Amino acid sequence: MIELFLIPRPEIERIAHASIPDSARLALIADICRVNALTAVKRAGSGHLGSSFSAMDIIVTLYYRHLNTLRVGFENPARDIFFSSKGHDVPGLYALLYALDVLSQEQLLKLRRYGGLDGHPDIGIRGLEANSGSLGMGISKGRGMAWAKRQRALGGQVYVMIGDGELQEGQNYEALRAAAHQRVGNLNVLLDHNKVQTDTLVSEIMPLGKLDELFRDFGWRVARCDGHDFAQLDAALREFATIQDQPKILIADTLKGRGVSFMEHPQALQDGNGLYRWHAGAPADAAYRAAHAELVAGINARLASLQLAPVTLEFVPPEIQARPTGFVGTNNQLFGEQESQPAPQSGPVSDEYVATAFGDALTALGAAHPELVVLDADLAADCRIRGFAQAHADRFIENGIAEQDMVSMAGGIARMGLLPVVNSFASFLAARANEQIYNNATEHTKIIYACHYAGLIPAGPGKSHQSIRDISLFGALPNVEILEPCNGVEAKWIAEYCIASAPENCAVRLVIGPSPRLITLPATYHLQRGRGAILHDGTDAVCFAYGPVMLHETLLAAEYLRTLGFGLRVINLPWLNRVDREWFADMVTPFKFLHVVEDHAPVGGLGDILLNELAATKQLDGKVFAKYGVEGFPAMGTPWEALERHRLSGARLAERILHAHDA
Amino acid sequence: MIELFLIPRPEIERIAHASIPDSARLALIADICRVNALTAVKRAGSGHLGSSFSAMDIIVTLYYRHLNTLRVGFENPARDIFFSSKGHDVPGLYALLYALDVLSQEQLLKLRRYGGLDGHPDIGIRGLEANSGSLGMGISKGRGMAWAKRQRALGGQVYVMIGDGELQEGQNYEALRAAAHQRVGNLNVLLDHNKVQTDTLVSEIMPLGKLDELFRDFGWRVARCDGHDFAQLDAALREFATIQDQPKILIADTLKGRGVSFMEHPQALQDGNGLYRWHAGAPADAAYRAAHAELVAGINARLASLQLAPVTLEFVPPEIQARPTGFVGTNNQLFGEQESQPAPQSGPVSDEYVATAFGDALTALGAAHPELVVLDADLAADCRIRGFAQAHADRFIENGIAEQDMVSMAGGIARMGLLPVVNSFASFLAARANEQIYNNATEHTKIIYACHYAGLIPAGPGKSHQSIRDISLFGALPNVEILEPCNGVEAKWIAEYCIASAPENCAVRLVIGPSPRLITLPATYHLQRGRGAILHDGTDAVCFAYGPVMLHETLLAAEYLRTLGFGLRVINLPWLNRVDREWFADMVTPFKFLHVVEDHAPVGGLGDILLNELAATKQLDGKVFAKYGVEGFPAMGTPWEALERHRLSGARLAERILHAHDA
Repeated sequence: MIELFLIPRPEIERIAHASIPDSARLALIADICRVNALTAVKRAGSGHLGSSFSAMDIIVTLYYRHLNTLRVGFENPARDIFFSSKGHDVPGLYALLYALDVLSQEQLLKLRRYGGLDGHPDIGIRGLEANSGSLGMGISKGRGMAWAKRQRALGGQVYVMIGDGELQEGQNYEALRAAAHQRVGNLNVLLDHNKVQTDTLVSEIMPLGKLDELFRDFGWRVARCDGHDFAQLDAALREFATIQDQPKILIADTLKGRGVSFMEHPQALQDGNGLYRWHAGAPADAAYRAAHAELVAGINARLASLQLAPVTLEFVPPEIQARPTGFVGTNNQLFGEQESQPAPQSGPVSDEYVATAFGDALTALGAAHPELVVLDADLAADCRIRGFAQAHADRFIENGIAEQDMVSMAGGIARMGLLPVVNSFASFLAARANEQIYNNATEHTKIIYACHYAGLIPAGPGKSHQSIRDISLFGALPNVEILEPCNGVEAKWIAEYCIASAPENCAVRLVIGPSPRLITLPATYHLQRGRGAILHDGTDAVCFAYGPVMLHETLLAAEYLRTLGFGLRVINLPWLNRVDREWFADMVTPFKFLHVVEDHAPVGGLGDILLNELAATKQLDGKVFAKYGVEGFPAMGTPWEALERHRLSGARLAERILHAHDA
Repeated sequence: MIELFLIPRPEIERIAHASIPDSARLALIADICRVNALTAVKRAGSGHLGSSFSAMDIIVTLYYRHLNTLRVGFENPARDIFFSSKGHDVPGLYALLYALDVLSQEQLLKLRRYGGLDGHPDIGIRGLEANSGSLGMGISKGRGMAWAKRQRALGGQVYVMIGDGELQEGQNYEALRAAAHQRVGNLNVLLDHNKVQTDTLVSEIMPLGKLDELFRDFGWRVARCDGHDFAQLDAALREFATIQDQPKILIADTLKGRGVSFMEHPQALQDGNGLYRWHAGAPADAAYRAAHAELVAGINARLASLQLAPVTLEFVPPEIQARPTGFVGTNNQLFGEQESQPAPQSGPVSDEYVATAFGDALTALGAAHPELVVLDADLAADCRIRGFAQAHADRFIENGIAEQDMVSMAGGIARMGLLPVVNSFASFLAARANEQIYNNATEHTKIIYACHYAGLIPAGPGKSHQSIRDISLFGALPNVEILEPCNGVEAKWIAEYCIASAPENCAVRLVIGPSPRLITLPATYHLQRGRGAILHDGTDAVCFAYGPVMLHETLLAAEYLRTLGFGLRVINLPWLNRVDREWFADMVTPFKFLHVVEDHAPVGGLGDILLNELAATKQLDGKVFAKYGVEGFPAMGTPWEALERHRLSGARLAERILHAHDA
């Protein structure tokens, strides 16, 4: 196992109080925070380094030179406020808040762990001022804070960090206009203009034009500087403090990945053939070691030139995993975990990704279906549609981070007789573009909505990304069928069905991580509208579930229950809002106890559809119906932590199913 | 009853084929279309004239001079496409399509009637190319069409009309950027720049800056002209036809209400003390007569100067109402109906508006609650918050047509300890800002979402406005209580509860039209979380409903059933996702037959909550549960037509309730 090291706070304080030029001090602290963010992300197994590094010098300047927060406290209504709208730069902020003694070392090392630090900002964490992670909301929210401060005659400035890719979201333009019109002069926006979004250059995905002019035309005071020059940053922020009748934006030109040569975007794009590798995910061991060494060497060289001793590193003990013994619930190797991290459970993980199977099917079907068009909102890699983009470049549309526009564009494409497949994360697609989806549906065209990252797992990125409402958001649309495959084979069948056969719109939920197990479908099974497949049989109760994550847990529960002599029939039901009446009656008639496991909130999911079917067909007499979904907001942490927290792990499901029978 | 007149098609053809200068011809046809739009709207009882009139000269130029549609047909893939993104200018388009013999006179006179012409564009109508009515989607959708035409190597240009108020929606900026980046050169946007949005000047609500520069900066070819000068319009469109490597936008400077002196916005704003009266709604009799006379006089003067005979007017027969005899279902006087229109039913209509009661309560509570802040997205009059704006100007925020920004701004305000009340129509608020609402909810602040125009009625504006999904869109949020008052008293109580007592976020559904009847609540009733009130008692079945519209229908059903000796207990349940277990058990225990009437889709409404409660408490044994909601997309028409179509009128509900007992 790789050994991890951070630079402990006493070392930071030594430098903070040394008699050295201020810019040198800030540069040293920023690089130390980079080291600590790197280590935290490596230990977490995932996280966003590129943007943490590009934004670091800006926030170091802000916290050390401008914010009154450390002096007046985070509870003081007169405090200055800083938050990041893009939010994925939060590992860098955590490292800085550790340096400032706002967060403890223990917290820093609990990045993306339950009860620790969320993968995207959450105000439950000390020092964090806004929840973010879904893009484009920050200027609006910051304006609300600034407006309220003014209205309540509280002091304090509001600073909002935004990203450049994020500026593709239309909400920004609503907010830019309103802030100028409402003269919210205590609002300061800091643009981390690092030129690179998730996959590659902003200018390739969707260029932004002349930003200085744009912001000025929208009525803002605009400054621009080198975002890695502390003196320039300081001067710009000082000037902003003198302007209180107009909102202000600082365009800080930065390098994505700043501080580590092979992560800085000019080099990284070259190494990656135009793709940027360091946006998300923990570096592999060798990359971690190299990045760490480069940063520490730089710090020590600078210290030496200032006649200061090199930094002392502190060994980070390996994570003590709470490994359940005996019955195994799930595993930790879903999404973004890398080779050196220990799995907290010994459960196997497959190398199957349903999203890959779906994406591969799209690519294959593209040849026979010239009407197929695939749209992306800057998640081509995560949505596994690079293959389609390469094979059918003339029918692939990269739309930038603009889900509403993408969905309405798809509506227009469908009106012209083509078949669009719209891709994004489920939480962004189903929620942000909901009215556009409705509008398209009213035209009775056919569109396929590929809702990636559906469900609770992975839980590390946090509630902005975990999608547990999407079934409910599509549910009341009369002409959208919602499906979710349980394995790669079913994913392929669903792609074929949606493209070739489905009579109406389709929303396909896709788990983004690897399937916890390879689910074997019965040899005679094929996809039939409203019908599912028995994966595990039993005579004491029946349980419906869907998708690789929750079916795995349900199967674990069934396997465990079998050892207790309790027979649970587990049914994979990939149709989340269409029920075949006859088949369903056959499935439930033998049972008194009916269970549904949701990879979704308990409201508005499959359970409600099945319950309604039971009520409509008067099959509820003498039955006990229970459903198990994600209650409250989705918990952040490892898969195991999140499943346990929501009592959806195999073990907890087994308990709950037994409990229903005892009650 | 007022007598209505239109100018029949033979008269239009006489002018179309007369030997007169082209500009004079187009001007005459445009004014004739204004007369016919005026008459259609007057007959319909509602509709949008101001914007129909401002856009008229643009579309007349387009259809008579540029579009190939009449020549090649509306089914031809190579046809040019025109649609309006703002959509409320559709009465003007209908009048033009009548002039062009695309729509019949019978259709024109069925504006806002079931089976007739929708209040906002719907592709079910011949000649209409896109569904619109919710703002800001048009450039995206038009780009999709244009992209698809190019991809399929079809000929034809795409023309999208947009409004200036509409440019406050952020989606436009996503679309503007993408169209330029994707070089969609067969896309032509026509900005009807009439300077006035729903209530008043765009420059007062949320100014747009220098539009020419803005569009140029976004990479578009920009032209600007007098939108009432046919030669200029023609020249601009001709020039656009020569440019195929860049999207094009024509800023057409127009007058809102063009053609009728007192409706033209400079005069109208002066008459209205800064408010524009003619955005929506049919004119009263005197205004109709005056507008009609002025337009016809102008047409005849121009004809005389061209040595042509004056136009012959055709009397429009009064609407033959299908009046149900005997049992009366509902009435037609909801929303926007005016004095001279006959009510198709004799049922009474009250002068109570729950939204007014809610708005008045906000105003009153504003004094005692300095934390209260009210936000508007250019629907202040419809949302009845002008009173608050006047009484508490420093806590009223006009945000323009930018729901996402408004909601996120409210999130920031709430984070600073104030209590925002966000106002818009339910369909725009719950759907378009859904992800922003979720983001706010994750911060565990408290925000009140006032969801106006909830439910099926009024049905004239059509499915872009009727909100039958909002309960489902809020439903899976764990910390939002959804409430709907049945009358003004309950609306006031709900406002008080939400502001002073509610422990979490609230979404308040408000019917926008007058309450069909004044519902009397039991003397002992007061608002209690999860409990409702018996409005009509009976022993044969129990029926839960909510809101003034559906409770009226349910009460009508109960009153009718009573004459048949069938006793239906009708319960007003204003809590749509919170159930008081004990009270609910008391209410349902005596009954075998349980019914729920939804002013919502059958999926995701109150019925699902109650069914889950029954299942969770094992109260379903021996019970029959049935719910009645708005199946499919909401029908357009008069209230009676829509209720009948969805089998939700009192008569149909009575039938269905009886049928459940027979089954």
